[in-house]
Amino acid sequence: MRIQFERVALIGIGLIGSSLSHVMRREQLAGHISGYSKSAETRATAVKLGLVDSMHESATEAVKNADLVILCVPVGACGDVAKDISAALKPGAILTDVGSVKAAVVRDVLPHLGEGIHFVPGHPIAGTEQSGPTSGFAELFNRRWCILTPLPDSDPQAVARLEEFWRSCGSDVEIMTPEHHDMVLAITSHLPHLIAYNIVGTAADLEDVTDSEVIKYSASGFRDFTRIAASDPTMWRDVFLNNREAVLEMLGRFSEDLSVLQRAIRFGDGDALFGLFSRARGVRRKIIEAGQETAAPDFGRDPTHRQ
Amino acid sequence: MRIQFERVALIGIGLIGSSLSHVMRREQLAGHISGYSKSAETRATAVKLGLVDSMHESATEAVKNADLVILCVPVGACGDVAKDISAALKPGAILTDVGSVKAAVVRDVLPHLGEGIHFVPGHPIAGTEQSGPTSGFAELFNRRWCILTPLPDSDPQAVARLEEFWRSCGSDVEIMTPEHHDMVLAITSHLPHLIAYNIVGTAADLEDVTDSEVIKYSASGFRDFTRIAASDPTMWRDVFLNNREAVLEMLGRFSEDLSVLQRAIRFGDGDALFGLFSRARGVRRKIIEAGQETAAPDFGRDPTHRQ
Repeated sequence: MRIQFERVALIGIGLIGSSLSHVMRREQLAGHISGYSKSAETRATAVKLGLVDSMHESATEAVKNADLVILCVPVGACGDVAKDISAALKPGAILTDVGSVKAAVVRDVLPHLGEGIHFVPGHPIAGTEQSGPTSGFAELFNRRWCILTPLPDSDPQAVARLEEFWRSCGSDVEIMTPEHHDMVLAITSHLPHLIAYNIVGTAADLEDVTDSEVIKYSASGFRDFTRIAASDPTMWRDVFLNNREAVLEMLGRFSEDLSVLQRAIRFGDGDALFGLFSRARGVRRKIIEAGQETAAPDFGRDPTHRQ
Repeated sequence: MRIQFERVALIGIGLIGSSLSHVMRREQLAGHISGYSKSAETRATAVKLGLVDSMHESATEAVKNADLVILCVPVGACGDVAKDISAALKPGAILTDVGSVKAAVVRDVLPHLGEGIHFVPGHPIAGTEQSGPTSGFAELFNRRWCILTPLPDSDPQAVARLEEFWRSCGSDVEIMTPEHHDMVLAITSHLPHLIAYNIVGTAADLEDVTDSEVIKYSASGFRDFTRIAASDPTMWRDVFLNNREAVLEMLGRFSEDLSVLQRAIRFGDGDALFGLFSRARGVRRKIIEAGQETAAPDFGRDPTHRQ
């Protein structure tokens, strides 16, 4: 693969930033990777792991002369970073991000940008429950979707270059508006995370069932929820603060539906329960067919849990 | 391993029944395995796979002369099966089940049993989202807990024999009352399944986000929930109909907690969100340390989803 950008700046080097470094190295997509993290420990780790060619003490330094700048920070931090770096951005540079909310990032970042900066917000639909610079791997974006939400006046050539970049990272690319993205992610990602966080909290507060019982018998279902609930709390706080309307809308629908189920249980309406439970298998089958999930039972989890 | 029971009858040959057959074969726990399923197709498949030494047209025939009878049917069916087989049970036989609800099974089964039958309800905390006689495997119970809920007048020797049997299948065994079991499973298993079924329904009913978008972007969280929501609908209908009080109690707590989260999102209370999100990582770590979950990121799921 030929070099696509002479100089790429990673602002933030957690799971996504470090995975981008690994895949850019493997595919030789960048001539030089510069980096910045606000955490001195992360900066040191990233240098030690060889994730960057140059590490900088400020985001402003890191973005100098970069042709592609990728913000890999929690969505609540994007506005401040944009404010910091805007004067240092190279004219003609492409600026993108990887946040799970798009309208709020546009709202926070755009006002700080000068002429000649191509801002194309993005969101790779990929991740694990782990975080930090040691958690990345080159295959993270393999066969996952990356959504780009260009603005009405985005330069088509900049969008095309970013699209090519993500395809080289292994992703498929889809284009939509920031608002539609935020609605789609509210149901596919934000609501599931909220519910997972919530049930972990409910379980932790019980009086009659001990913590250790919840842990011991978690293989009966609960443990699945703890995976996404183990995701980075700062990142997720920012998601919910910045996609409020869409999340509240989906949460309202979820709660209505749950009340219907609750009533069916209370009144012993087995037919209603069976009907609702029956349609779920088809959804999972379609996800597997779409290549977004393993067909192996139990996620292909090692039954001995030794690894 | 020596033969523990001369003749074991499996009534119902789905995921649990077929897995029990595989592990009994591997460990040579049974002199003879007799079987029954109400489905002719399942009976034929079980014979073809060699899961039983004798297959019968009725449960009554299958339990004749059996020293251990294991009911592997949905909990709602246990009462009727007990009524059918009671007269045919061998005096001194141990009768157990594998259902996810215990008090209701005791309520439904016990009245049908004559003198000299040792009824010891049980529940292996193990499973996958798949069902049917082809889905079983010998390792299913490895390092998983099996809960036994003996009755006040259960014969200690029968309980000890059943405990030894489950240990030979790879399980650890815990003893508790049926009522406590039903409370523990309501939070660790029944509520998670209910929530998973519910969110799949909510997603399926959206107008502004299409089905295909939910499928495409499901790797952002939603897909995890579809696994347990793909479980057998009949089995789960029966669980909710038969553990109503405990499920409604846990559901009430869950909904209260969700309202608190909803309010924090509405009013932009980032500190409250961060605090609630932060405690979840510890819970997952403890589950991994307890050997009930893999430590591999993303459940160790094949990132290419090719298998």
